Amino acid sequence: MTVTAIAYHRAMGRWEPNARGRLAQAAIRLYAEQGFERTTVAQIARQAGLTERTFFRHFADKREVLFYGTDLARELLARAVAEAPASAGPMDAVAAALHAAAAVFQENPERVRLRDAVVSANAELRERELIKLAAFASAIAGALRERGVPEPAAGLAAETGVAVLKTAFTRWIGEPDGPDLDHILRECLRDLSGMLADRLADQGSPG
Amino acid sequence: MTVTAIAYHRAMGRWEPNARGRLAQAAIRLYAEQGFERTTVAQIARQAGLTERTFFRHFADKREVLFYGTDLARELLARAVAEAPASAGPMDAVAAALHAAAAVFQENPERVRLRDAVVSANAELRERELIKLAAFASAIAGALRERGVPEPAAGLAAETGVAVLKTAFTRWIGEPDGPDLDHILRECLRDLSGMLADRLADQGSPG
Repeated sequence: MTVTAIAYHRAMGRWEPNARGRLAQAAIRLYAEQGFERTTVAQIARQAGLTERTFFRHFADKREVLFYGTDLARELLARAVAEAPASAGPMDAVAAALHAAAAVFQENPERVRLRDAVVSANAELRERELIKLAAFASAIAGALRERGVPEPAAGLAAETGVAVLKTAFTRWIGEPDGPDLDHILRECLRDLSGMLADRLADQGSPG
Repeated sequence: MTVTAIAYHRAMGRWEPNARGRLAQAAIRLYAEQGFERTTVAQIARQAGLTERTFFRHFADKREVLFYGTDLARELLARAVAEAPASAGPMDAVAAALHAAAAVFQENPERVRLRDAVVSANAELRERELIKLAAFASAIAGALRERGVPEPAAGLAAETGVAVLKTAFTRWIGEPDGPDLDHILRECLRDLSGMLADRLADQGSPG
């Protein structure tokens, strides 16, 4: 996990300020200040002190700046599931993946909040974000199957994990001075478990 | 619920064969036979014995044929949540909504499977399907808040409900001779509850 996290941060350009990282930072600031649509690649390059040519060596387009971490995030999630102890049940492995994701978000909350504000303000970007979350669920489900979890349990645990991540993330974004994402994730998993247990208790059929 | 279901079926044109229903049926058959991209509106109209002009009175484009039920489905889900007994907990209300959706799918499984095959074969349609599911989650969450369920519990229950629906639906689609969707939904809710309970039991912190 730690090694993956380091690789993730390096690639995201946060620890070693490189062209890609500088471009991404400049882009997200401009998107937040003046809107995604109104920002040009020329402006991003200028703000980062680089050329448009360099921008296009790193990113296919303006949108990719907001989503280039998706593949690495998928790997991070899958790795965390794979590295969970052999004794861990499916939801434990999923929880490990969610906490690994939370650790990355928690590294730079201002940047994550800025990016989220940009994505939330644009219908096309919100759709892209849904596709990203679906990719997360399928990465987690694949890693669970690798651990020997059969379907539909693997898909169910993975989709539920992403549902929990989405809800916890939304709450975390909305409360900049609130508890950290790790804490909220734990609460959400506990609340969900409680809500499901209540339901079965009412029906008098625990198994 | 029953009244909503009737309105839903009427609007979907299954009980009263109307232009819209005939066009939708012709379109889905053609999409399945020859592919979504290769099918023209002219072909759909011809197959339904109607004109292109009539097609465009009912649908904005070819894609809308596959998604025009989304708004009614949202209403159906929200209504089922609203009509759950006052004593029902959040997950009971969500389960009621999922079973209401299942009842509609189960009415015409062949058509649902045909539509799903068409959507699954096309990246753009798969993306549109994710947006539809996100709309379902927000309809359910809104209806839960109306019942007085606070956030993040409302969002959590709604997103989890959609995760369960997605998983159960995938399994149901994949096993044409398997159990009905209602049964699979019940199993998934029970399995999920079990996985979450196992997790908390391992951690020794039930509350």
